[in-house]
Amino acid sequence: MALIFYERVGHEGRRPSPFSWRIRYALAHKELDFEVRPVRFADVGTIRALSGQHLTPVLSYGDHVVHETWDIACYLEDQFPDGPSLFGGAIGRGMARHINAWSDSQLASPLRFVIYADFPAVLDVGDRDYFRSTRERALGMSLEAACADPAGLAAFQQACAPLERTLSAQPYICGPAPAYADYSVFSVFQWARLGSPKEVVAPGSAIADWRRRMISLFGHLGDRFPGYPI
Amino acid sequence: MALIFYERVGHEGRRPSPFSWRIRYALAHKELDFEVRPVRFADVGTIRALSGQHLTPVLSYGDHVVHETWDIACYLEDQFPDGPSLFGGAIGRGMARHINAWSDSQLASPLRFVIYADFPAVLDVGDRDYFRSTRERALGMSLEAACADPAGLAAFQQACAPLERTLSAQPYICGPAPAYADYSVFSVFQWARLGSPKEVVAPGSAIADWRRRMISLFGHLGDRFPGYPI
Repeated sequence: MALIFYERVGHEGRRPSPFSWRIRYALAHKELDFEVRPVRFADVGTIRALSGQHLTPVLSYGDHVVHETWDIACYLEDQFPDGPSLFGGAIGRGMARHINAWSDSQLASPLRFVIYADFPAVLDVGDRDYFRSTRERALGMSLEAACADPAGLAAFQQACAPLERTLSAQPYICGPAPAYADYSVFSVFQWARLGSPKEVVAPGSAIADWRRRMISLFGHLGDRFPGYPI
Repeated sequence: MALIFYERVGHEGRRPSPFSWRIRYALAHKELDFEVRPVRFADVGTIRALSGQHLTPVLSYGDHVVHETWDIACYLEDQFPDGPSLFGGAIGRGMARHINAWSDSQLASPLRFVIYADFPAVLDVGDRDYFRSTRERALGMSLEAACADPAGLAAFQQACAPLERTLSAQPYICGPAPAYADYSVFSVFQWARLGSPKEVVAPGSAIADWRRRMISLFGHLGDRFPGYPI
């Protein structure tokens, strides 16, 4: 029985989705083999028929289908208990969920105002209009207007302050070795790195060093797909 | 051999220090007995002679002296491994440190601009001038000016967004039961609750419910000392 990973694929094989990256790293951490089914925005019908909703990634295993990255991570942890733990137990699972919520709401959200204008170029050509129209409607302005203020980058970097502090004191968010909280936070930095030519990490920072080590994990998994097209 | 807890004590027995609260809860979690040595700002010489620095709390056990709350928590975890775990293992310890850093830099820091003007009233009368002069020098303005803008409360509540999200999904930051990350974040809310008459938590929120349950832990530990003097 195969694990099947339905993943958003961008322009010329790119993988710009942060949600895919956290699960890709979780699968590698768990030492699991899986098959990839590439998905484009146009394939929303397939995803909806499979999972009852339209967001990716989706994971299936036999007739079990899971969506929403937090639920996928928990499913992998529970279904494959013999692999290395993603959370380190119940206390760690609770904290990983909080760090996941922090990362999504306090890091990814301000990052939109830095990288969104560059993002269509990494998407499949057929997906660009969909992305632009849905995001511009949500923001109430053009992607270019959303990213016009350089204060956006400063706001993102200010939100990164506790991460810089943590990584100045220990190698990974999860201590001496990486686990799921590292993957969920790193996925936001992959989103930036593969979705925009702008450098959002301060050179020489503890975050820059951690990101370099995160990219190189699992046989340089973080660099397996094409980067920003410039 | 006794654990001795050197703790800042405020006006008429108050305990307004967030740093004391996280360690007090950690000691209760570990089911440890301890003796309290009350400290005022004027006792800085005693603290410096004991620990080589001036901040409280400080913990001593025999001839071992620890300061800095994160180091105290780790010391308790390692020195008393038979009590319930504060972190749930190495992965959890790493994440607890990050949540601690997040809470100090992203929650406590904006909270200063809500509660600082009220705070001298909970301090020992002899400590008030020291508090006011050091904090006003650091801020470059009076405590009253720092707290004059109602946007301060909105900024604090915005910073609480990931916590509200976590606690809407599970009872505690550490999952089904509380552990150190709950204590370190809760300590910031104790600082607000015992240091100012302003309510900083939205009524009916998941945070409000969690705070109520946190206060009632360990025989209503969170309410053992006097509240704000109004």
